[in-house]
Parts: sequence; C-alpha cells; structure tokens
Amino acid sequence: MSETVLEKALVVAEACADAARETVIPHFRTSLQADAKSDDSPVTVADRAAEKVMRSILEDALPEHAILGEESGMSGHEGDWLWVLDPIDGTRAFLTGRPTFGTLISLFHKGRPVLGLIDQPLTGERWIGLAGQRTRFVSARLPGQIGTRICPVLGQAELSCTSPEIMTPNHAPRFASLQKQVRRTSWGGDCYAYGLLALGQIDVIAECTMNPWDWGALVPVIEGAGGSITDWQGKPLTLESDGTVLACGNPALLTDIVNHLSHPGTMG
Amino acid sequence: MSETVLEKALVVAEACADAARETVIPHFRTSLQADAKSDDSPVTVADRAAEKVMRSILEDALPEHAILGEESGMSGHEGDWLWVLDPIDGTRAFLTGRPTFGTLISLFHKGRPVLGLIDQPLTGERWIGLAGQRTRFVSARLPGQIGTRICPVLGQAELSCTSPEIMTPNHAPRFASLQKQVRRTSWGGDCYAYGLLALGQIDVIAECTMNPWDWGALVPVIEGAGGSITDWQGKPLTLESDGTVLACGNPALLTDIVNHLSHPGTMG
Repeated sequence: MSETVLEKALVVAEACADAARETVIPHFRTSLQADAKSDDSPVTVADRAAEKVMRSILEDALPEHAILGEESGMSGHEGDWLWVLDPIDGTRAFLTGRPTFGTLISLFHKGRPVLGLIDQPLTGERWIGLAGQRTRFVSARLPGQIGTRICPVLGQAELSCTSPEIMTPNHAPRFASLQKQVRRTSWGGDCYAYGLLALGQIDVIAECTMNPWDWGALVPVIEGAGGSITDWQGKPLTLESDGTVLACGNPALLTDIVNHLSHPGTMG
Repeated sequence: MSETVLEKALVVAEACADAARETVIPHFRTSLQADAKSDDSPVTVADRAAEKVMRSILEDALPEHAILGEESGMSGHEGDWLWVLDPIDGTRAFLTGRPTFGTLISLFHKGRPVLGLIDQPLTGERWIGLAGQRTRFVSARLPGQIGTRICPVLGQAELSCTSPEIMTPNHAPRFASLQKQVRRTSWGGDCYAYGLLALGQIDVIAECTMNPWDWGALVPVIEGAGGSITDWQGKPLTLESDGTVLACGNPALLTDIVNHLSHPGTMG
C-alpha cells in the first residue's frame, strides 16, 4: 500500500466530508419538539441523508471498495478495502444543539484502519490521519497544533468520556478505578474529544460499547499525533474488538492505565 | 427601575463581554502541559485578566455599583446595584480545549438579577436577558431562535448536567431519581446548556454547588425565553440560595420535577 493510494483515497474522503457537512448543517437546531419517535427526528433524517451522499461519492469513485455505515450496514464487494462511516457521531450532542458532534470517515485495509477523518461541520475543524504519516489539522477559526501531550504521570492527567451512561455494569467500576488516579474528568465530546487529545488538550479517553464506525477514524488520527489507541487491555483495535477504546496522549502511561482498568478497586 | 436604566447597563455589559472575549481567546488551547499548579494554568491567567478588564470598564462607567467576581471577590459600595461576574464559566471545558465555556455577566438589583448576558467567545454566540423583556440571541455563525420548548411530559424531556462530579452525596440520588423519568441525559456544557435551553434544544437542567456568578446571568435569559429557573425546591434564586439550580423549558413541568428531586427512589 503506497502513500499515493492513501492520498488518492483522501481526496475522496474529503469530498465525502464536504458533502456530509452541507447535508447535515441545515438540520442543526431545527427541531422545537422533543420527538418521541426517533425515526423522524432531525438527527435521524440528517444521519441517513449524509450517509447516502457519502455512499454515492464512494461508489462512483471507488466501486471496488466495500462500505460499512452506521445507518445502512454493509454493501459492496468483499475484499481488502472497507470504508467505515458514521455520518453523525454524537447523536445526543446534535439533538441538544451542541456544535460538538462530528462526521467520521475511515478506510480499513485488511481489517486495520489506514485512513481516518474527523470532521466537525459546525466548528469548522478537520483532523486527517493517514497510516505512517503525521496527522494534519485543518481549522477555519479555532487554533490548535497537532501533537499529543506527554503527561508525565497519571495524577496530572485530564481524563475524558462522553457519558457515564455508556458504561456497562462490568465497565463502570473499572472506569471509576481509573478516575481515582487522574487529576480531573470531563464529560461530553464524542469524537471531538479524540481530536482534542491529538491537539494535546486531553491526556486519556476511556470509553466502551463502541462500534467500528465510532473508532475507525480515530486510530490514524491519534497514532499520527503521537498517541496510542487500543482496547482496555492495551491490544490493537480490530473489527472483532470488544467495544472498549482507550486513547492515551503519552503511550508510556498505557501499562499503568490498563492496570487500573483491569482491576477495579485494588489499585487505588 | 425603568427599561432605560437596563438598556444603559446593557451597553456597559456588552462592552465587558467584548473585552473579555479579546482577553480570553489568545489563551485558548495554548498549554501543552497538564499543569499541576492551578495558580498559573492558562485558564487562571485568562480568568484573572478577563475579570480585571471587566472590572475596569464597570468602575469607569458605573462607579456607584458594587462588583462581585469569581476571581477577586467583592468590591465597591454597598447599595441596590451589584454586578456579578464569571469570566470563564466552564474551567474544565476551557482546560481541555472545548469551545463551549462562556463568560457570564449579570446585574443584580436589590438581590435579584435583572440583566444577564451569556457570551460564548469562540462559537460567537451571545444571549442577552433583561428583566421583563424577551431574551435576545445574537450569533455570528450558528443558527437558533429564542423560545423554550414546551415539552409536554417529563418522559420526553432532554435533561442536561455539566458533570456527575458536581453532585454531593445528598444531591446524587435525587438527580438519579429525576434521570429515571426523562428520555435522555446529556453531559457537559456549563452555561452553554442554559443558552441551548433558551433556544428550545434542552428541556431540563439540574445542577448543584452553584455560586451566584454561575447562575446570576442565567435567570433573565431563561425567564425571558419562556422558561423557569429556580432552586431544586422550585423557589426563586437569591444570594442566599443553597446552590441548587433547576431550569425548565416548560414551567408547567416544574412541580413534577421538584417532586422527583425531593424524594429520591420513592417516585420511580
């Protein structure tokens, strides 16, 4: 797999992100009803429309690649190349008018993500990760420099997680055990938090119940910024992973963090 | 107290918000070190500098008014008029590079907030509340219409809270009891969530351990958008309040919500 292949795929991925932005933005903050039926909520309409437009671009440009999307599942030929899409990562954020939701686009090669794009339609930020390359940050208005922070000890670390409600009874005490070791926890953020980790603003993110469309794009972005991203055991993420995700700005802290996530209550 | 007095105070309040924006923005996302000493973290530097510049504007324009700021405490003459300032509401958000922190400026008259301004330096949004008037929303880029959502039943409500860590052992089970009744909970947001409630995007916010500089500006904004804002007992917020804050988009739901917040575990 040459760099040229990835750069060509990136052109298509950016076209997808541009089209998703245009599709999603008109639905933002449009509902004044808390809709009981999720089927026709603004986020669902925007989600489906954005996935459709991205699929159409990918099928035209790269008809030999398969596509897995959060909304419409798997399509296309089985092979080495698989696009994995999440048109709106951060449903709750979108539904409550927070401009922090994002669009996630990733390309897997033989089961490993080699291209990842985090796009924030409303803040105008975009993170681009390509395997083996330094991550790029493109931002219209907000500042930021790519490069994770080398937090020297866990006691100084900023931990982040989207919501306590994503934790299963198995994961909650393990997360709580990690929480006791860090300096501070902040909540909310979805994919945006991973972008901030790549900018050296957050040190650790631990989440669970994540699907490949939730983490695929994050892997090249985090690794290309100097961080590590694994499951809670410190193992590489694969399509067969257990849904736990652990991102670290300073990979030297990984073993320590994995220890706390493995043995709730015994390490404090 | 005439509308003219408030409109004159608003001109000064907006000058404060403009100056705070300019002061705060250069410090955003500047630190690549997780600083163990909070005394010289970028947020503390920005907080102090923004309060200083706002105090200077207020002292020049309205020397007969007292000022209470989160950073420097109380100054000025005792009297009917008190400015209450929080230069950076959302310290954790600021520290982790999230553009959702805000500046809060309020003017109390005889102990009740009569002017409130929520300013979001980085998203470019500003909410302006004046007692007895419809709230105004000024936004450079993001859409939004003032007016709370009339959520018909608690079961359809979007609940929001900044962080589970703000809850004391007394408040946590009461909040959990409310959580069981609502459709969904989203986390993070600080003052931004109250702005979103005023735009009809969030239905209920319940928080505690809040100081007057945390809630003063929110009162006129929420009330002028059609919502209610009280303590967890449904009583008006005063300088002697217990630190609980409850904002409702549909004031008709207030009694029901207060019930759940009063009797943990017995109302589910």
